[in-house]
Amino acid sequence: MRAGGKDNIMKLATKLGLAAALVALPSMGLAQEAEAAPDINPYIFTTLLFLIGGFLVFWMAAGFAMLEAGLVRSKNVTMQLTKNIALFSIAAIMYWLIGFNLMYPGDGWWVAGWMGPWFSTTSLEPVGLAAADASLDYASVGSDFFFQLMFCATTASIVSGTLAERIKLWPFLIFVVVLTGAIYPIEASWQWGGGWLSEMGFSDFAGSTLVHAAGGFAALAGALVLGPRIGKYNKDGKTVPIPGSNLALATLGTFILWLGWFGFNGGSQLAMGTVGDVTDVSRIFANTNMAAAAGAVAALLLSQALYKKPDLTMTLNGALAGLVSITAEPLAPTLFGALWIGAVGGIIVVLTVPMLDKLKIDDVVGAIPVHLIAGIWGTFIVPAYNSDASFGTQIVGIVAIGAFVFVVSMVVWLILKAVMGIRVGEEEEINGLDMAELGMEAYPEFSKS
Amino acid sequence: MRAGGKDNIMKLATKLGLAAALVALPSMGLAQEAEAAPDINPYIFTTLLFLIGGFLVFWMAAGFAMLEAGLVRSKNVTMQLTKNIALFSIAAIMYWLIGFNLMYPGDGWWVAGWMGPWFSTTSLEPVGLAAADASLDYASVGSDFFFQLMFCATTASIVSGTLAERIKLWPFLIFVVVLTGAIYPIEASWQWGGGWLSEMGFSDFAGSTLVHAAGGFAALAGALVLGPRIGKYNKDGKTVPIPGSNLALATLGTFILWLGWFGFNGGSQLAMGTVGDVTDVSRIFANTNMAAAAGAVAALLLSQALYKKPDLTMTLNGALAGLVSITAEPLAPTLFGALWIGAVGGIIVVLTVPMLDKLKIDDVVGAIPVHLIAGIWGTFIVPAYNSDASFGTQIVGIVAIGAFVFVVSMVVWLILKAVMGIRVGEEEEINGLDMAELGMEAYPEFSKS
Amino acid sequence: MRAGGKDNIMKLATKLGLAAALVALPSMGLAQEAEAAPDINPYIFTTLLFLIGGFLVFWMAAGFAMLEAGLVRSKNVTMQLTKNIALFSIAAIMYWLIGFNLMYPGDGWWVAGWMGPWFSTTSLEPVGLAAADASLDYASVGSDFFFQLMFCATTASIVSGTLAERIKLWPFLIFVVVLTGAIYPIEASWQWGGGWLSEMGFSDFAGSTLVHAAGGFAALAGALVLGPRIGKYNKDGKTVPIPGSNLALATLGTFILWLGWFGFNGGSQLAMGTVGDVTDVSRIFANTNMAAAAGAVAALLLSQALYKKPDLTMTLNGALAGLVSITAEPLAPTLFGALWIGAVGGIIVVLTVPMLDKLKIDDVVGAIPVHLIAGIWGTFIVPAYNSDASFGTQIVGIVAIGAFVFVVSMVVWLILKAVMGIRVGEEEEINGLDMAELGMEAYPEFSKS
Repeated sequence: MRAGGKDNIMKLATKLGLAAALVALPSMGLAQEAEAAPDINPYIFTTLLFLIGGFLVFWMAAGFAMLEAGLVRSKNVTMQLTKNIALFSIAAIMYWLIGFNLMYPGDGWWVAGWMGPWFSTTSLEPVGLAAADASLDYASVGSDFFFQLMFCATTASIVSGTLAERIKLWPFLIFVVVLTGAIYPIEASWQWGGGWLSEMGFSDFAGSTLVHAAGGFAALAGALVLGPRIGKYNKDGKTVPIPGSNLALATLGTFILWLGWFGFNGGSQLAMGTVGDVTDVSRIFANTNMAAAAGAVAALLLSQALYKKPDLTMTLNGALAGLVSITAEPLAPTLFGALWIGAVGGIIVVLTVPMLDKLKIDDVVGAIPVHLIAGIWGTFIVPAYNSDASFGTQIVGIVAIGAFVFVVSMVVWLILKAVMGIRVGEEEEINGLDMAELGMEAYPEFSKS
Repeated sequence: MRAGGKDNIMKLATKLGLAAALVALPSMGLAQEAEAAPDINPYIFTTLLFLIGGFLVFWMAAGFAMLEAGLVRSKNVTMQLTKNIALFSIAAIMYWLIGFNLMYPGDGWWVAGWMGPWFSTTSLEPVGLAAADASLDYASVGSDFFFQLMFCATTASIVSGTLAERIKLWPFLIFVVVLTGAIYPIEASWQWGGGWLSEMGFSDFAGSTLVHAAGGFAALAGALVLGPRIGKYNKDGKTVPIPGSNLALATLGTFILWLGWFGFNGGSQLAMGTVGDVTDVSRIFANTNMAAAAGAVAALLLSQALYKKPDLTMTLNGALAGLVSITAEPLAPTLFGALWIGAVGGIIVVLTVPMLDKLKIDDVVGAIPVHLIAGIWGTFIVPAYNSDASFGTQIVGIVAIGAFVFVVSMVVWLILKAVMGIRVGEEEEINGLDMAELGMEAYPEFSKS
Repeated sequence: MRAGGKDNIMKLATKLGLAAALVALPSMGLAQEAEAAPDINPYIFTTLLFLIGGFLVFWMAAGFAMLEAGLVRSKNVTMQLTKNIALFSIAAIMYWLIGFNLMYPGDGWWVAGWMGPWFSTTSLEPVGLAAADASLDYASVGSDFFFQLMFCATTASIVSGTLAERIKLWPFLIFVVVLTGAIYPIEASWQWGGGWLSEMGFSDFAGSTLVHAAGGFAALAGALVLGPRIGKYNKDGKTVPIPGSNLALATLGTFILWLGWFGFNGGSQLAMGTVGDVTDVSRIFANTNMAAAAGAVAALLLSQALYKKPDLTMTLNGALAGLVSITAEPLAPTLFGALWIGAVGGIIVVLTVPMLDKLKIDDVVGAIPVHLIAGIWGTFIVPAYNSDASFGTQIVGIVAIGAFVFVVSMVVWLILKAVMGIRVGEEEEINGLDMAELGMEAYPEFSKS
């Protein structure tokens, strides 16, 4: 994004020829009036891109909530909903309190440092900003903050699904504080804040690694510390399927995420004020849609081939994996490129879900295959269409971010486990977190089978 | 909004200097061609703001439907859904039939008066409007009508939640006719139609009082006339909790409302064609999100502190109260201002829900705390950040609108009660309105506990 | 749309006067610089219209999924969800593989023909398209493809609801392949591709017939071949009501479709870069909303009058029928016109649902009344407000498209029936398709009554 593979500086040259012509009339005494006003339309268009992109990515928070609520058992639905609305809210506050300025330390935004440049709350432009005071070659800081904040929150949303049905509320939310206030802003800064990965030539357009694999690594660390749910793996080492309680909600969540992803990838063009930029945004929309469709179809066909029965949850996760796969480079590929990159994402999900179970890593909603593994795939394959990227650098970026996020997350999870415990008691888990921790059922009138 | 605390007139001056320069070349025989075409981009941008803002606020109708369907018992879900789709549809018709012109009586819109200027249906501009015939300093009337209509409908949505599970369908819908055709347009006209409150200096940017508290006052009057649900307060005067049937839907509704609120507050800037306006819209988006997040976190923490268990419905209503609180002034506050204003909104919900129960006012979904009390809070606190507002005038506005809406609503409810009865029979209420009034269950296959 | 009743060519004349004035200064040696850059804003605005319209119509796929999942019995919900996400994904691939270029064969898009112009995949513009290479009087091809693709997918969505609860997954998806790859693109090409219907003067602004009735005819052919569900009509020939399992989801689906329809109709203006165009888009939004509201209210009132009980599913379908009815001409009518056209749509639903049952045509969700019959109504009534259309030509268009889609669909269904069978076995149908075909329940914990 900001410092990604794409040059985000807007070209304002188009109308300057006209101004020059008029400035060349000094003998007519018109020079003063002739200074044509700068073209403000690119600023408005790009700001609008951030606002639309931002509300679409906000909507993904609802998508994660519905997907996860649909894939857990009904006795844990209230807890999962509580975690989702709380984690988004915490992310919104932490990204304002620390994250935004930590992520973009050096570029002269409107910051009001109260603890120095590396730890300061975000301030917006004054009301009624004059054109002369605006970054006309970019966009409103407020819109950018709004958009970037949603990416930070998405990273946290990914974690909650994996750890569902057994983690305590408060330790989870404390982890979210650290993730959104420090872990995500630091690693994202390496690339989008103009840091060392960006300088090295790493390419991750909208965050296959910076957002999705990062969230997946944080989830993986948590899953390892937390252990699997009671009953997920039986005494013979076999995996016991635990079906989700509401596949209509899970499907709704998938459609919401798919919709939101147009903002996620399209907004990451970071510019919409030129023919080239808005055409690129269109290309990104078309490619994003294609990758999702291909991921879904690939997972549907493969689940039919392997298990003789089409699998809805695999198909949903296939669509999401297609989306994650194209996120590192939604611009450069052709539609056919988006198709096969997304299809491989869908295949990855079908093949790696059972692999995780063999490792006894219990990922309730499949977030690790979808976000971590397909995220790595999407990041790795960028050079296939983007000649500015190299496989070597892509691997360096994936390893660096993966190692950082995994290790720091693991340390935080272990500290939380030592200090306050992160897992509910056995009885609470069996009875469900809703009654045990919250005293409130999601569906009190629908009897359980 | 239109005549709110903010000057909504667009500044077209920027490019006029260029036109002037060319007009000053008469000796070259160029004067005629030199009249530069007016800049139509601000008109398009602001119209687009209304269209996007309008469809986002439309979406709030779905949010209210889901929130309310999730918070009533399953035996009343079909009725609640019916009320929600019907009330929106009625609002759309009444606002066209009377409301829009009643609310904006004096500003020369394209009206086709068939019963005089105070009672006339809305007409749109002709197809293919020429730029010369457009209000280039504003926006398309059609887009404005579309946007304003959604606010009228929102006011009605607020009422349906409070009165759920016991009110008859048709008296409720007749009340909606009066509310959307007369009560809302009249009180909103006092401020946004350029009426006496506006002239006095009252400030309510997007309607904490004009929409939310107004809906809350209409709901309160209805709740008093209607009385509490059977079994809500037992013989010892204690409150009996009646849990909602589907907290996943309630959470979905909250996320929908949160999303729609970006249009509600952002669109109320009423302009997007200048650097200052689009930057202000960005500021409003960021502040609106912050207030919601802060309301949710405050309610979550306070419910944990008071009841030792986090409460999902309080958290959801906390987010909504944060949104209502910032709605009177989403532009002027800093992000920190939005945080504390929203957080107080969340605290208000947790503290006033039990208060209403002590008064035996049965508000099924908590709409009175969220929309009425937090709406008053948000309106009252405007002067903290907006120096054009004064606490005295804010109180006058709240009291005037509150008294008008409450008294007129009370009269309408009492007439409806006398003429046709507004409450279902005891047996119907106990068996549920769905079978008794509609003969249709929302979840016929999910057995009741 | 592209070649519909409306002239979609943008008028770029406005700013050319200014350029001409400057070009007329050759004696000053300014001619070269004086060539003012072309105005790129209309291109950006129209591209943005396609992107926003496209994501809104995408969202309709979720609306169909929720509507249908809510209206089938819970034992078939997983299957209905699977069909919906799969059909959208297949449509996305087929429209790229064949549909787009088959539909628009002759207008010089960026096509990469690999099997000639009539069978070629879609290619997008290169990354970073220069203004000089863009169709500045239109929009980005990528955005147009994205938008048009959603219409193709909508056609398929209509079919799945009618045939629910008894059709096998794979034959249905094979039909979708044919429908989205050939049937829809061919008939849509007759009008929007500049074909013979367009030349004849047929008028169907956003697709009451091209999309909705076409989907309805394909569904009708399928329903005739497939036969009714077991138990739908008893031995006395009476209709047995089979209630949907989740009316909250059905209502959510309706609200989603209503929201998406703003993109469906508004985006079909195909231009947003002039005052006239954006004002027309506003008019379309307002009319679309009014028709939906009127359809809902008409169906609510009529169901109350006929059956003495308001009917939620009729009201939902009434809103949808209002939307379908206005889709053929959402621009020309006044708001009052939209009201009565939409209201007739709502009345059509209430009257024709029982008619279909008398004919023993089992349409699970009412898609034939809503999309086929109201679609014909909307197309037929276009000349009432659009003087460029004639009733005769409208009838020709409806009959031509209807006959083509119905006959070809019937042939495809019969072939599928002969080759692989299209209906599940009796036992599978009674036990539900979810366990029989997929081995996965949508609500495994909610016991069935």
